[in-house]
Amino acid sequence: MDSSRPIGVFDSGIGGLTVVRALMERLPLESIVYFGDTARVPYGIKSVTTIEHFTGQIVDYLLGQRVKMLIVACNTMAAVAADVVKARAGEIPVLDVIEAGALAAVAGSSVRGVGVIGTPTTINSNAYARRMHRLDPALRVYSQACPLFVPLVEEGWLDHPVTRLTAQEYLKPVLAEEVDSLVLGCTHYPLLKPLLKEVAGERVRLVDSATTTAELAAARLHELGIASDGQRAADYRYVVTDVPLRFQTIGERFLGRSLGRVERVEW
Amino acid sequence: MDSSRPIGVFDSGIGGLTVVRALMERLPLESIVYFGDTARVPYGIKSVTTIEHFTGQIVDYLLGQRVKMLIVACNTMAAVAADVVKARAGEIPVLDVIEAGALAAVAGSSVRGVGVIGTPTTINSNAYARRMHRLDPALRVYSQACPLFVPLVEEGWLDHPVTRLTAQEYLKPVLAEEVDSLVLGCTHYPLLKPLLKEVAGERVRLVDSATTTAELAAARLHELGIASDGQRAADYRYVVTDVPLRFQTIGERFLGRSLGRVERVEW
Repeated sequence: MDSSRPIGVFDSGIGGLTVVRALMERLPLESIVYFGDTARVPYGIKSVTTIEHFTGQIVDYLLGQRVKMLIVACNTMAAVAADVVKARAGEIPVLDVIEAGALAAVAGSSVRGVGVIGTPTTINSNAYARRMHRLDPALRVYSQACPLFVPLVEEGWLDHPVTRLTAQEYLKPVLAEEVDSLVLGCTHYPLLKPLLKEVAGERVRLVDSATTTAELAAARLHELGIASDGQRAADYRYVVTDVPLRFQTIGERFLGRSLGRVERVEW
Repeated sequence: MDSSRPIGVFDSGIGGLTVVRALMERLPLESIVYFGDTARVPYGIKSVTTIEHFTGQIVDYLLGQRVKMLIVACNTMAAVAADVVKARAGEIPVLDVIEAGALAAVAGSSVRGVGVIGTPTTINSNAYARRMHRLDPALRVYSQACPLFVPLVEEGWLDHPVTRLTAQEYLKPVLAEEVDSLVLGCTHYPLLKPLLKEVAGERVRLVDSATTTAELAAARLHELGIASDGQRAADYRYVVTDVPLRFQTIGERFLGRSLGRVERVEW
């Protein structure tokens, strides 16, 4: 396979840009095509059938862009539609934020007790617990849905009394258990890291699935011998289904830099 | 027109059920077809072009159900796509939550100062202020976007310290002005009425666009001579584009009664 081909990263909206940001830092030679289904976001409140249908459409689009790897940067799609992605991808390697987060959490927990936070759909799917139990059947996993975190991040209340109070309420049951790792099971949550660190306290390590996904992608590209050699400059494209109000502002908050060229496709 | 035909009520999701609830109480003889675009909710974060496109599809569907009146029970669609609805509806009368809320607010303000709260799209559209100024050009209107209220209602935190703190923060600038009316410019907000009443205090009257819409519908049906004579029992249908997790629970919280038969259409 031509190693200069881009990595395809996709999400239901803009949250996956935290994964793109981590990839840019960890793999600066790689080109990336990002797809965000901003016209139909959020997926977390939709049924499995609908999410599978949407996921298939996005994968087909990215395969058409001749990507060399697919990264599911959306916990909801990774939780309920991973099989759809793999079936369509064929030979193209696929990895996702849940796989990456689960691996890192299991590897890093010395008390073998892990907390997981995410959207209601991700948590109800039990996908993190299932993947972690495959790696360590005796691991104790405590999950908590945090439906208000995404809107709080999008409001920009990253360090606000309302967010702190919400975090305290959501994390209380998890922190009452013997855990030393907390998986941030949603691509919006890395922006809450400083506040969550404070609320969770010293003894709990936060597992950020954006950076763990970038690590996993680096390892997989090298294993498969398809890492870019840097002969062509890395190119970044952002494709969305809608360019809503405040898209630029929020997108840049997630990406940590200017968004550059944003293309819109109509379905 | 056959007066036994149903009223078509539509929203981007389930929020419009607060309008259905008010209609059932005010007009118990009327049949209702409710359409909620739950596969693509929320509209409030999408572009005008996308919202207009979605709105057209819903209106066409309801016209195919032979409704005798269309009620736009979605502030976002009323704010940015009211013309699309009217153009397609032809002879069928159309009314919407913004028209109803604006009329009631202007009629009831003795200090001629009104606050309006809603989603960012509704507030940025300035639709309430424009409609109210058409009725009273000297009216002072103070608007405030409250993006966290919808997720807080859907979380069920109707009387929670986080919601109170959020409401205090959002309402502060509006309450600092001389206002005696506060328009709840989002169909989710009627569920926050008790808490908002507390935060806003005695001197401020809350204008609930669900009940004001039901009043306006009653008046319009009588004017046009198309109110149901009650010869056929009222029938209620709920049509959605997706049946997501917790749909029943949240829907019934909005409707205030059992949802009964829910149909799904696929687009």
